[in-house]
Amino acid sequence: MSRVRIEIKYLKGVEDPEALTIKKNLSILGFTGVSSINTVRSYEIEFSDDVRDPVAEARKMAEKLLVNPVIHDYEVTLAGE
Amino acid sequence: MSRVRIEIKYLKGVEDPEALTIKKNLSILGFTGVSSINTVRSYEIEFSDDVRDPVAEARKMAEKLLVNPVIHDYEVTLAGE
Repeated sequence: MSRVRIEIKYLKGVEDPEALTIKKNLSILGFTGVSSINTVRSYEIEFSDDVRDPVAEARKMAEKLLVNPVIHDYEVTLAGE
Repeated sequence: MSRVRIEIKYLKGVEDPEALTIKKNLSILGFTGVSSINTVRSYEIEFSDDVRDPVAEARKMAEKLLVNPVIHDYEVTLAGE
């Protein structure tokens, strides 16, 4: 069993709508000391033992389904075997 | 400037609908070696210097706005000063 983490962020310069909304709402709630917020979406994936290269497999999955390369950057890390 | 990261996961036993959908779609695309997927939502927050205890501030923010304690567990870590 291998565990891999795919971490997906917005590219620099791309608007992060969820973060902007949260920043506005935090400010309404009185949290005025926030300079910036970035959202990160991660997937923790467990592979069965017959997957030989879980990091490469996770990269393929990211590129085929999870990541939009126009707006996202992503990173794959091995979380444990 | 302090940077804090709030990481939000589903509690164990709570259904993670996004993960279930992704697992199904990955399997349709031929990625059949996935045993399980968990989604994690994180916020990277930069505080201005007048916030004295950024971790405590982030905890308050999580509890007031970002986390639903019925279904979520969360963790706050200091990412840098």
